[in-house]
This record gives sequence, structure tokens and C-alpha cells, in this order.
Amino acid sequence: MQSAEVKFNRNSLLLTLKRYSSAVSDMEKTILLPSLLRDVPSGCEAADETCRDLYANYLMLKAIRNTVESSLVLLDDHKGKNATFTKTLEPSVDADPEALFLFHLRGLFSVMSDLIKKTRGLTEKYLDIIGLAN
Amino acid sequence: MQSAEVKFNRNSLLLTLKRYSSAVSDMEKTILLPSLLRDVPSGCEAADETCRDLYANYLMLKAIRNTVESSLVLLDDHKGKNATFTKTLEPSVDADPEALFLFHLRGLFSVMSDLIKKTRGLTEKYLDIIGLAN
Repeated sequence: MQSAEVKFNRNSLLLTLKRYSSAVSDMEKTILLPSLLRDVPSGCEAADETCRDLYANYLMLKAIRNTVESSLVLLDDHKGKNATFTKTLEPSVDADPEALFLFHLRGLFSVMSDLIKKTRGLTEKYLDIIGLAN
Repeated sequence: MQSAEVKFNRNSLLLTLKRYSSAVSDMEKTILLPSLLRDVPSGCEAADETCRDLYANYLMLKAIRNTVESSLVLLDDHKGKNATFTKTLEPSVDADPEALFLFHLRGLFSVMSDLIKKTRGLTEKYLDIIGLAN
């Protein structure tokens, strides 16, 4: 039973969201001078249009944390960044709501895990820049 | 301030998941003889492969509620129903995690709202079948 509970807790969507919130909070406490991250490449190719510097990543991770904490999402806002995704999937919505539910739940878990890693990586990188890396 | 709080509460992911859980609970309390739903068409075309009878829908809505309540999703389970969705999106994962996060958060809100409607609709239909509809 205990093993099942541990598994449950580790996979809980709420806990994953809290873990992310906590990682961003640690990042904010550590990064006292965010401007040091300006123009520091984030590891992607500069020629890549979506490539941002670490400062832009820092702002993005904070913005996502605010959305996570408020869960305030306007459902009718289908314009903008996710328009392509939505368009690709729209025909399937009516076909199988169960598959769509699992798809979004898994997707949210997966993207949150990725964002937790990015947040911790950025915090480490900052410590490296100021010469305090472990 | 109060208006903003109301908006926040209405859109909270947690509350949406709770609303769904509660709708399924009402459905279970109302539908004392689920077998009456067998072979009752669910409104889709019978020729459609994904078309299920209301009994299958009843089971599906309960199964989703169990997943919602446990949030127990195996992240490495990429096989099965959502394989097509995952494949379509995979190339974009690295490109813009913020867009992907918003996409899945909005998607989850949207599919949950749809499932709440389906659950209430199914409960109404059952009452109609046993002659107790309003």
C-alpha cells in the first residue's frame, strides 16, 4: 500500500505543479542580479528564431509559474502561440474525449518536468556565472 | 478584487477537476441501473467506429473520474490511444515550452468542460429513459 501511495504522490499533477513553483522560487532567491543573464546564450543555435538568451528564459519561467499558481487561463483565447497545436488537434476532439483527456494530462506532466529541469539548470548556470557553482 | 477572485476560482484547474468529479458522483447516485443504458445510442452515427452506446460512455466517464482523482498517469506510457497526438506534437516540444504548457493547460480545461457536459447529459438521458425527466 505504501509503495502505491508513494507512486501516487510522485505522479500527482498538483504536486508536480507545486514542485515547479518551488523550483522557480529557489531560482528567484538565488538569482539576485537577473541582468547578468542578458545575452548569455541558452544552449540553442543563435540562428534558430526561437532561441532566447538566459534572461528571456528566466522571465518565461517566472511567467509560467504565475500561470501555474493562478491556473488562470482564458479558454476563449485560442489565438496566438498555441493556434497551430489547436488546429492540428481540433478534428479529434469529438472523436475520443478520453484519449484527449489523457493526452493533455500526460502532456502537462511532461512539459512541467521539462520546465522543472530548465529552472534548476538556469539556477546552476547563474551560480556558474558568478563563480559560486558547486 | 472580489470579481477577480471569482474569475480565478471559476477558472482554477483544481476546481474544474473537482466539478467533474462531483458531476460523475451525481451520475452514479442517479443511475441505479446502468445496464438500462446498454445499446442506447449516444447520439453519434452507428457507422462511426468510435461511436459507443451510453453504457460505454458511462464506464468511460467513471474511468476518467478515477484518473482525475488519482492523477495517476504513467509518463512512459506513450503507446496506445494518444500515440498519434504525441507524434504530431513531438517536434515542437523543444521549440517553445511556454506554448506547449499553455496548450496542454487550456486543452485540459477544455476537455474537462466537455466531459462535465457529457456527464450531466448522460444523467439527464437516464432520467428520461426511466420516465423521471424534468
